[in-house]
Amino acid sequence: MTTYNPGPRIAQVGGISLSTPDLEKSLGFFRDLLGMEVVFQTEEVAYLRGYMELGHHSLVLRRSEEAIVDSYSLRVQRPEDVELFYHQLQAQDIDVIELPAGQERGRGEAIRFLWPGAGHPLELFYHLDKPEAPEEIRSKLPSNSSKRRGLGVRRIDHLNLQCAPGDMNQAEGWLRENLGFKRREFIRIPENNLVVASWMSVTPQVHDIALVANPFEKSAQLHHVAFNLENFSDLLTAADVLKDHDVQFDIGPGKHGIGQALYLYVRDPGSGHRVELYAGGYLVFDPDWEAIEWTPATVRDGLTWFGDPLEMGPDNSMAPTTNSAPLRPRVVQPV
Amino acid sequence: MTTYNPGPRIAQVGGISLSTPDLEKSLGFFRDLLGMEVVFQTEEVAYLRGYMELGHHSLVLRRSEEAIVDSYSLRVQRPEDVELFYHQLQAQDIDVIELPAGQERGRGEAIRFLWPGAGHPLELFYHLDKPEAPEEIRSKLPSNSSKRRGLGVRRIDHLNLQCAPGDMNQAEGWLRENLGFKRREFIRIPENNLVVASWMSVTPQVHDIALVANPFEKSAQLHHVAFNLENFSDLLTAADVLKDHDVQFDIGPGKHGIGQALYLYVRDPGSGHRVELYAGGYLVFDPDWEAIEWTPATVRDGLTWFGDPLEMGPDNSMAPTTNSAPLRPRVVQPV
Amino acid sequence: MTTYNPGPRIAQVGGISLSTPDLEKSLGFFRDLLGMEVVFQTEEVAYLRGYMELGHHSLVLRRSEEAIVDSYSLRVQRPEDVELFYHQLQAQDIDVIELPAGQERGRGEAIRFLWPGAGHPLELFYHLDKPEAPEEIRSKLPSNSSKRRGLGVRRIDHLNLQCAPGDMNQAEGWLRENLGFKRREFIRIPENNLVVASWMSVTPQVHDIALVANPFEKSAQLHHVAFNLENFSDLLTAADVLKDHDVQFDIGPGKHGIGQALYLYVRDPGSGHRVELYAGGYLVFDPDWEAIEWTPATVRDGLTWFGDPLEMGPDNSMAPTTNSAPLRPRVVQPV
Amino acid sequence: MTTYNPGPRIAQVGGISLSTPDLEKSLGFFRDLLGMEVVFQTEEVAYLRGYMELGHHSLVLRRSEEAIVDSYSLRVQRPEDVELFYHQLQAQDIDVIELPAGQERGRGEAIRFLWPGAGHPLELFYHLDKPEAPEEIRSKLPSNSSKRRGLGVRRIDHLNLQCAPGDMNQAEGWLRENLGFKRREFIRIPENNLVVASWMSVTPQVHDIALVANPFEKSAQLHHVAFNLENFSDLLTAADVLKDHDVQFDIGPGKHGIGQALYLYVRDPGSGHRVELYAGGYLVFDPDWEAIEWTPATVRDGLTWFGDPLEMGPDNSMAPTTNSAPLRPRVVQPV
Repeated sequence: MTTYNPGPRIAQVGGISLSTPDLEKSLGFFRDLLGMEVVFQTEEVAYLRGYMELGHHSLVLRRSEEAIVDSYSLRVQRPEDVELFYHQLQAQDIDVIELPAGQERGRGEAIRFLWPGAGHPLELFYHLDKPEAPEEIRSKLPSNSSKRRGLGVRRIDHLNLQCAPGDMNQAEGWLRENLGFKRREFIRIPENNLVVASWMSVTPQVHDIALVANPFEKSAQLHHVAFNLENFSDLLTAADVLKDHDVQFDIGPGKHGIGQALYLYVRDPGSGHRVELYAGGYLVFDPDWEAIEWTPATVRDGLTWFGDPLEMGPDNSMAPTTNSAPLRPRVVQPV
Repeated sequence: MTTYNPGPRIAQVGGISLSTPDLEKSLGFFRDLLGMEVVFQTEEVAYLRGYMELGHHSLVLRRSEEAIVDSYSLRVQRPEDVELFYHQLQAQDIDVIELPAGQERGRGEAIRFLWPGAGHPLELFYHLDKPEAPEEIRSKLPSNSSKRRGLGVRRIDHLNLQCAPGDMNQAEGWLRENLGFKRREFIRIPENNLVVASWMSVTPQVHDIALVANPFEKSAQLHHVAFNLENFSDLLTAADVLKDHDVQFDIGPGKHGIGQALYLYVRDPGSGHRVELYAGGYLVFDPDWEAIEWTPATVRDGLTWFGDPLEMGPDNSMAPTTNSAPLRPRVVQPV
Repeated sequence: MTTYNPGPRIAQVGGISLSTPDLEKSLGFFRDLLGMEVVFQTEEVAYLRGYMELGHHSLVLRRSEEAIVDSYSLRVQRPEDVELFYHQLQAQDIDVIELPAGQERGRGEAIRFLWPGAGHPLELFYHLDKPEAPEEIRSKLPSNSSKRRGLGVRRIDHLNLQCAPGDMNQAEGWLRENLGFKRREFIRIPENNLVVASWMSVTPQVHDIALVANPFEKSAQLHHVAFNLENFSDLLTAADVLKDHDVQFDIGPGKHGIGQALYLYVRDPGSGHRVELYAGGYLVFDPDWEAIEWTPATVRDGLTWFGDPLEMGPDNSMAPTTNSAPLRPRVVQPV
Repeated sequence: MTTYNPGPRIAQVGGISLSTPDLEKSLGFFRDLLGMEVVFQTEEVAYLRGYMELGHHSLVLRRSEEAIVDSYSLRVQRPEDVELFYHQLQAQDIDVIELPAGQERGRGEAIRFLWPGAGHPLELFYHLDKPEAPEEIRSKLPSNSSKRRGLGVRRIDHLNLQCAPGDMNQAEGWLRENLGFKRREFIRIPENNLVVASWMSVTPQVHDIALVANPFEKSAQLHHVAFNLENFSDLLTAADVLKDHDVQFDIGPGKHGIGQALYLYVRDPGSGHRVELYAGGYLVFDPDWEAIEWTPATVRDGLTWFGDPLEMGPDNSMAPTTNSAPLRPRVVQPV
């Protein structure tokens, strides 16, 4: 057998940490309507996961006056990859903070840095506890942590982040070259050759992270975090129920040509963060996948293949919702 | 950046080559009912793909008096991996045949060997042409090769192969150690500690290949090849239509606990090969995934979570259907 | 305009009144899992409806040591039809009891009698209150009484009742001739010309009531009461969740050829009454509909077109569950 | 038993007869894409039905230079109702034409008149042949005429017709008073008390016919004819496939609050007639159903509960498509 020592790799999107001015309302949305499990909760913070997630959490909700994104977490492939990435980042003179195990409850040691070019606070970690759900909601299927509840959110799906158009090229390239993300689909302006949106992944998903040039010229803003549902019917049921609960709809339901998934963009009533409910889509297994290119002239079908249309450009209903936090993190773990 | 030279890896299940005594009936099934595209066809052989497959084919149908599996194809991650695997296999004194580019139409150079322990003829290749579909069926979505037709088969999903119980341990271990497959779920007999079924993958799918100990003590038989549908409703529609066309049902529809997908097992009317239509299921992204263990006492829910029940043991309706071919391959490329 | 005075007619299945030895468990099933609204409740009795039912209730659960069916309610077309039916029944020397308004809460005056031949206690009424749901669960859609919750039971669908084989002919004929039910599909034994099952309706549904000859030679037993879900996906989700909650499955999911609906037969954990979850199917609009005839030789596809098979004959898992009450009713209205 | 002689009644929407400038393209749409069966065809005319329709046809396509609606057919409850309606109409001094049996192939004697106020040519008939489908497409289920094909159109669902606003009150009232249609939902302008849209049915469907005041002040125009699909997933699949075939989308997919069905409005590529694909919805069984009232202030949720929004008013993309024919009908039966 050939032996080898590959470099550090990203395995998956690990989670997101959102602050919310109204934690109770946010819990009413994520826990009661979407059906996520609250694994741990204090007065100040709650840790949640979907019913198909065995790890401790993929969503942290933290009480705060300001709705902000505290961090985007990426999980690495091997325990040693946290330290290997730390050295890689330092070698590039990137400011990196070490976060002790438990800084997010259930999570091991992590590192935090601002995504060069994009400014979003990324946290890399490997270890995540796998707590069993309480018996009354525990699933009989070992691949589910709990029984399906509410609208059936299974797991976090992907992140859609924004950066200033002028930073797009550097930020997108950095993620691909340094964290191993691959471009799956993208939008390019033929006139100036600029990429204005890029769907990238480390997994066969069409995107684990999308980066989109923000027409408002702001950087480091969240466009949305997506959670995964089993299928199209679940998404239509979610639309039905969320509409009846007066949850704010931005766009949807509709089907993206890019990724071929059904979408529904709504707002967490507690924080205003935009959440995409997401179902279906295709997987990239081909090792010679060539990134699919769209242009402004063709991308209408890419953004919306059918359904409530998603428009490009400075459409207020789809403006990025909230700022990302600076490098110095807020403490989410109760002491 | 750390540089490294990883060993060869498998990227995906590339396809299956089936011989059929009645090519016309088999085409009536795969092309007309399931909706696959015939990319190329002669009197003797047809190459087919699902509407989401950009590569030349994932299914070869070859006219033959005997219904047999000519090969199971696995696609490697990089062009050089074919040769790297060749040397690895030779270093283990495994008999390997080199197949020239075009031996299967549209495919590059490949190697062929019998899976040690299991006896199934595996072929490894990298290159696969990406022909555009004829304009009248070409999809407007670049991630689809053609428009959805018939019952909407999107792509090949996985292989379920059988071996003699006494060979199970060696065969399953060989695949994991040499081709990088990871065990995702498995059935173990507590009394003798024997693994009798193992669901393994190189992708986040719960299985790209399942290996099952054959209670009939035969080796190298196909249990089924699975094709993927978009969702549960598509699978129910497929059941409706296939039933109305008198296609033989073995088991299903039902839902596996193992993998959490909906299943329907039917027979290709031309060859008798068993085909599973498969939709949904979970994906493994966790880098610390622990293979889920079932025992005969618990596996009933694993085989069938709900629906038409799949039983363990020598149930004739689910006996493996057909033998695999020997090492020396049949020529499928017209000369 | 031609004026005319048609005789009394049945408009719809109005509801069912079940007694249960464990009211709390029954509420856990119908309210918490199936998502029905409890419109009114005391220590002894609860009134429930689906989210698409505007009337006061379609299900009464009454605490009792014995699990029994207290009544099957049919709603008449016009207010005067209650009295018109009363006279019709008396003219046939059928023993009829008058039930005062409010005997079931929210319901107007009713009459009660035992279905001649079948022995099931039928209650006919017209008036039913239409209470608004509490604001926190009230739907914004005026055609729904409340927001969709739980597994999404929309409304009662139909009743499947049993009688002794020797009574079948009389009982089935009586319902058609006197209450205006039309035969839509049926099973006949060619050897003796006996009808052994009949699907009948007063609406375009294929059946509002099915009457089935009971191979155990008992009369007046409930086979199941069916509740309606929106679509096939909802039924599969229901199977998933109910299975995970250890609710007893009898048969299903599967699809009937008769009626073309998806089925799942489970037991109310509090009472053991069998409940069918039911989705889809065809509607009969043709005025010249000819009842579809099945025989034992052909009915396998009628009972189960695909999925977990429903067998004819004395299959214990599908034996009728519970006796119907005698003519003198239990009082369900708190005094 | 009370005996009575009720007046004539309408049983169901029987069909629509459309002329098309490009019969081949129209057949490509209705037959090849939607999956309807062509029961009979000549150079000039084709008769089609959905796979759940046992009658001879529900759609007639007639070659013509002009795209027009030749007739809207309603089927009566009893054979004698054709004549009874004839006398009723004559008693109102309405001009009625008698159409001989076979004027539409497979259909018995009919009468034709212009809907007073609305001007649409209505044809009433009772008899319709029930031809078996050719063996190769015949369904094994006797409640289906043929096997499900294409996008799975099951049957005609409803008609949406337009009239000039000033005629609305008379036309809507006439249909209810004379043909027994019941108002299920409607839009009323509070300022002038005018009804501007009314969903009416003789069956438990929320509408067999909708009449909508046309903001363009024209009368006797078709807004759309709707065909029924099994469920929401089928409608999304239809959207996928029709989009890929460049069929013109007007609006959808989305879900109506009124009727609670999923909608997709597209155009027959051969004629430009608007066709709605329609799935799901609620049924009205309550004998005391009160028509649901919407106003311009509330109807946004009624028109579109979620999805691609349907706007009120002179929105060009949803203008009525084609004129209805005058009283003297075109002959559709080949001579």
